[in-house]
Amino acid sequence: METKEKLIFTSDYTEGAHPAIMQRLNDTNFEKTAGYGNDEYSESAREKIRAACNAPEADIFFLAGGTQANAVMISSILRPYQGVIAADSGHISVHEAGAIEFGGHKVLTLPEKDGKINADQIAELVKKYELDESRDHMVMPGMVYISQPTEFGTLYSLSELKDISETCRKNCITLYLDGARLAYALACPENDVTLPDIAALCDAFYIGGTKCGTLFGEAVVIPKHDMIPHLFTMIKQNGALLAKGRITGIQFETLFTDDLYLNIGRPAIEAAARIRSALLEKGYTLAFPSPTNQIFILFEKDQADKLSEKIEMGFWENRGEDRVIMRIATSWATKDSDVDRLIEML
Amino acid sequence: METKEKLIFTSDYTEGAHPAIMQRLNDTNFEKTAGYGNDEYSESAREKIRAACNAPEADIFFLAGGTQANAVMISSILRPYQGVIAADSGHISVHEAGAIEFGGHKVLTLPEKDGKINADQIAELVKKYELDESRDHMVMPGMVYISQPTEFGTLYSLSELKDISETCRKNCITLYLDGARLAYALACPENDVTLPDIAALCDAFYIGGTKCGTLFGEAVVIPKHDMIPHLFTMIKQNGALLAKGRITGIQFETLFTDDLYLNIGRPAIEAAARIRSALLEKGYTLAFPSPTNQIFILFEKDQADKLSEKIEMGFWENRGEDRVIMRIATSWATKDSDVDRLIEML
Amino acid sequence: METKEKLIFTSDYTEGAHPAIMQRLNDTNFEKTAGYGNDEYSESAREKIRAACNAPEADIFFLAGGTQANAVMISSILRPYQGVIAADSGHISVHEAGAIEFGGHKVLTLPEKDGKINADQIAELVKKYELDESRDHMVMPGMVYISQPTEFGTLYSLSELKDISETCRKNCITLYLDGARLAYALACPENDVTLPDIAALCDAFYIGGTKCGTLFGEAVVIPKHDMIPHLFTMIKQNGALLAKGRITGIQFETLFTDDLYLNIGRPAIEAAARIRSALLEKGYTLAFPSPTNQIFILFEKDQADKLSEKIEMGFWENRGEDRVIMRIATSWATKDSDVDRLIEML
Amino acid sequence: METKEKLIFTSDYTEGAHPAIMQRLNDTNFEKTAGYGNDEYSESAREKIRAACNAPEADIFFLAGGTQANAVMISSILRPYQGVIAADSGHISVHEAGAIEFGGHKVLTLPEKDGKINADQIAELVKKYELDESRDHMVMPGMVYISQPTEFGTLYSLSELKDISETCRKNCITLYLDGARLAYALACPENDVTLPDIAALCDAFYIGGTKCGTLFGEAVVIPKHDMIPHLFTMIKQNGALLAKGRITGIQFETLFTDDLYLNIGRPAIEAAARIRSALLEKGYTLAFPSPTNQIFILFEKDQADKLSEKIEMGFWENRGEDRVIMRIATSWATKDSDVDRLIEML
Repeated sequence: METKEKLIFTSDYTEGAHPAIMQRLNDTNFEKTAGYGNDEYSESAREKIRAACNAPEADIFFLAGGTQANAVMISSILRPYQGVIAADSGHISVHEAGAIEFGGHKVLTLPEKDGKINADQIAELVKKYELDESRDHMVMPGMVYISQPTEFGTLYSLSELKDISETCRKNCITLYLDGARLAYALACPENDVTLPDIAALCDAFYIGGTKCGTLFGEAVVIPKHDMIPHLFTMIKQNGALLAKGRITGIQFETLFTDDLYLNIGRPAIEAAARIRSALLEKGYTLAFPSPTNQIFILFEKDQADKLSEKIEMGFWENRGEDRVIMRIATSWATKDSDVDRLIEML
Repeated sequence: METKEKLIFTSDYTEGAHPAIMQRLNDTNFEKTAGYGNDEYSESAREKIRAACNAPEADIFFLAGGTQANAVMISSILRPYQGVIAADSGHISVHEAGAIEFGGHKVLTLPEKDGKINADQIAELVKKYELDESRDHMVMPGMVYISQPTEFGTLYSLSELKDISETCRKNCITLYLDGARLAYALACPENDVTLPDIAALCDAFYIGGTKCGTLFGEAVVIPKHDMIPHLFTMIKQNGALLAKGRITGIQFETLFTDDLYLNIGRPAIEAAARIRSALLEKGYTLAFPSPTNQIFILFEKDQADKLSEKIEMGFWENRGEDRVIMRIATSWATKDSDVDRLIEML
Repeated sequence: METKEKLIFTSDYTEGAHPAIMQRLNDTNFEKTAGYGNDEYSESAREKIRAACNAPEADIFFLAGGTQANAVMISSILRPYQGVIAADSGHISVHEAGAIEFGGHKVLTLPEKDGKINADQIAELVKKYELDESRDHMVMPGMVYISQPTEFGTLYSLSELKDISETCRKNCITLYLDGARLAYALACPENDVTLPDIAALCDAFYIGGTKCGTLFGEAVVIPKHDMIPHLFTMIKQNGALLAKGRITGIQFETLFTDDLYLNIGRPAIEAAARIRSALLEKGYTLAFPSPTNQIFILFEKDQADKLSEKIEMGFWENRGEDRVIMRIATSWATKDSDVDRLIEML
Repeated sequence: METKEKLIFTSDYTEGAHPAIMQRLNDTNFEKTAGYGNDEYSESAREKIRAACNAPEADIFFLAGGTQANAVMISSILRPYQGVIAADSGHISVHEAGAIEFGGHKVLTLPEKDGKINADQIAELVKKYELDESRDHMVMPGMVYISQPTEFGTLYSLSELKDISETCRKNCITLYLDGARLAYALACPENDVTLPDIAALCDAFYIGGTKCGTLFGEAVVIPKHDMIPHLFTMIKQNGALLAKGRITGIQFETLFTDDLYLNIGRPAIEAAARIRSALLEKGYTLAFPSPTNQIFILFEKDQADKLSEKIEMGFWENRGEDRVIMRIATSWATKDSDVDRLIEML
């Protein structure tokens, strides 16, 4: 498993964990702690996240991955007759193998614009449902799912998020935010949405770990205590309860010490900005206006194949027969020297 | 988080990971690999497990935890009209918060004897079903679930396992083995069931990591290639697919290098044997005849409370108003000095 | 399809509907009404049932069959982390093909005595759960399911039902009663439980139609209005909403006109009493002490086979290799002359 | 419940059953038959349907309603990782309260044209899935759902159906047809698709009863014997097994005697044709070009409200703030005199 010549920019989960996390795991390895998240590290992590979110009574659970977090939260919050509103480009709409439907709920899709949906679309969907005389034969919208950053790397502004939140609350609909890559939003100069904003405006969300520097793990946050009774048991029932809960606890405790989580994404954002500039300079076409760590490039297939010999990018989607969108992702671990080489190769 | 005075013997998941695993995670931390188990470490781990199990064409997946492994495998193998036979003391029967039923399937329980069920019981249940004229209104037995070691720390002998396997195959019923603590069976002198035996006699099983030296993770093994088509997608759908699959891959690759998995349980078995002798010598009552790393002691409640001031044990179950079964568990990480102190305190 | 020589006593659903119901269906056949139970007949039926149950604000829905009623009600009332307590002989435990588990919930079985469970057993199960330190890893008891009459034809007394109800309410557990054959309880001299008693003591129940004189259909009653919000939609979602709701409405409207439902079971009870006396007189062994329309006889297999040449009985269950329990069921439609012939043949 | 002055054209399920069916139910009311569809009438109905469909080995089951038939068939045929392709206007996509997702499966919608989808759309969706490198993270298309006539009253031509069938078979995808109103297709001069065509081209379908002259009930047909093993048990598990199966059996036996099913829709088609002509003549706008028994009219809301004072129509959907689509439905029971009055009122 020697070093490869080829540059790898396929995703933000190609490396292990941030060195501070590895250090902490090593240091604590032989301590004995309680299981299932009832250990001191998990409790300390929860306290630090509550502080960072300005949500002193929040319930917090550490799960293994993002699809799991989404599936558990959505099925735990919705009643059987309800569905979840999401962009048609949303992760739950496309790339979770039907996990939400497997849990019994319809995903009510809205057309995305730059990966986002807006308050007006939501209000209109709800109004249409309410005015429909057959609504008792239809799935009731019970939740809104958004991602920050979105699957296209774009960002909701604070103003957009406030509008969505207000619309949801007016209509008694839960607002849930998927923060798989939240660190990259928080480190982005274009971003004006803080963790306390999210905790104030959303009913539940998760703070991504896997793509933001942990070995694995996501922190689910429910700002209002006991909004979801017996969530612990439902997590277990979904096969999502980790016996050695302390492993996720230690990782998040590290991420929320000395503002690491707020800063861990910075190298990724800076690297992405450099790459984006170079791409535009060299005449490439960007598919979405993303300011975060994901860059989507629209290629002729030939062109993509050729570049792929030197740079490993992520496949995003085919556009007709001849064109393809590929993704370059930077991460907390991206090295300047690799960015230099990448720019050279373009 | 200073050293506690109290001795901790609550479970086999109180520490982090085996040092060899931590070393390997540290060493590989900055390598870039593909996601979702498509990396070289995961593939190497699979090859080594195939070799250790003498199952060259086995499909192998790494999942985060045991309940998840059970839930995914059982719901992926069974057809909707089928249920799974298990001991009434089985983990899926009692301590998985109804995960199997949540996935749509009935657990058909048989009365345990020392935590085990036997081929005759299974044959009788199947025959009763087949002779019942109302069977089309009933749940068809489609799988047998057993644990090795059992939830009571006891072991199936090779002869018992062969009988169960034969009964299952004669009746076209899948045999699934939960190996959450398999390393402790493999290290136990009383044990005569090897990994190749299990792979030859079972249709699916999992090799436990979480309780046997990893930070987390279990290796699901299906000896016959493609017995479960599209299992990858069903794992994703169950929220059980790890993005950084390499983290489990590296851990299992280490466990299956130089026979570590076959030996990692030895200290636990030796410690348990010493504790068991001391308990019997001092007149304690053991609840089950377990030869592995779990020791179940039947206490008067007062007695248990008093001992619990010095030794942290695991609660197992109440026996009426006045008595309680507590569990002492040793692990790969148990220190001789702690065993010495424990024996002294008894 | 000429008259058969053989006497048929297999079940209480061998004929069509009570003549008064057929008359009413014929009379109203060409009237035009609204769909989905929003017609005048369904509303009138609901009003009459509310009056008969002394439950003026009850929500009432008409479903097609008993398994459907049980599955819809149990999954609509329970939260995902809860299960339903039932006798191990309960219909949902054995003969509904796993419908409750298919809906995601475990059936927590208690050993029956004469087909019944009692308040003490329930209290003990709940207490055991509450005292178990692992209860968050277990299924929470959330409902009690009982049948009146039971699957063995036996009856809960008012006193027994009151005790169960009190235990449930003290423990915040829903009490649900399956009244598939309720008319036969109500017509039975041994019975001291009225419809108003049931409505006062249970949180939900269904009044059986299929086995009590309708072509099909059961009336689900929830005494407390809106206890289950959006139940209409959940009924639709379960595929249990009838487009021509008026067909069940008309049938139940007829059953609850002039006390027909209270009296329709009488011929069955009288016939069963005569048959039971004759059986005992002739030395047959009754399997359960049922006072209602089902009679369970323990036969040597040879004996059962021989009698079955002349009388079609229902298979109940095998008892070992050599013996079998068969069921004789009478109904609202049983003719005296058939009873005479049967008694002669015994 | 006297005759109403207002004309009722809301749906095709406003009356009871065809007189021949009522006659047959009355005539057979006191016969004793076996339960659960094991009676002679159900068997005779199955034989007659097999003959009418030219499908001698077909498996046939009688269920209570359409949503139930769709939900049971789709969840019984699909594997967990598969979803069902349907028009975005399909009944399962909109008006079944999420029953398909409740059963665990995503509905993969395609944009309808006149309520229909075509072979090219299906082929393209499948190709897109197959070429997507992330397809293992996505729902696999496993079935196509179409309705004949569609929810908009339009018809698939034989040529269109053949193309769809061919595309499905080439791609190993099951083709399922919802025939809730099939009698109205079969009676329509524009229709060129026969029952044998459907049985030859589809893998499963249901012949609608509720909207085509029965009190309730739909006949599910699977042309290839045992394509779905243990379907009986899955029907039971879904709460869809009728104890008095003979009631649906008798109704379908009548419908398939003397070609009644082929002719029962004729009065509806003739009435609809007259109404449609009158509407066009008077300058109304039809929303869809439906040749069957459903007529969709695009109204200004004022206009609709005014007409609704005299004629009860069905609400279909709002079109913006000011306009609404209403439905006039005729049926097997529509009287010429009512059509005369309706035309006068327009």
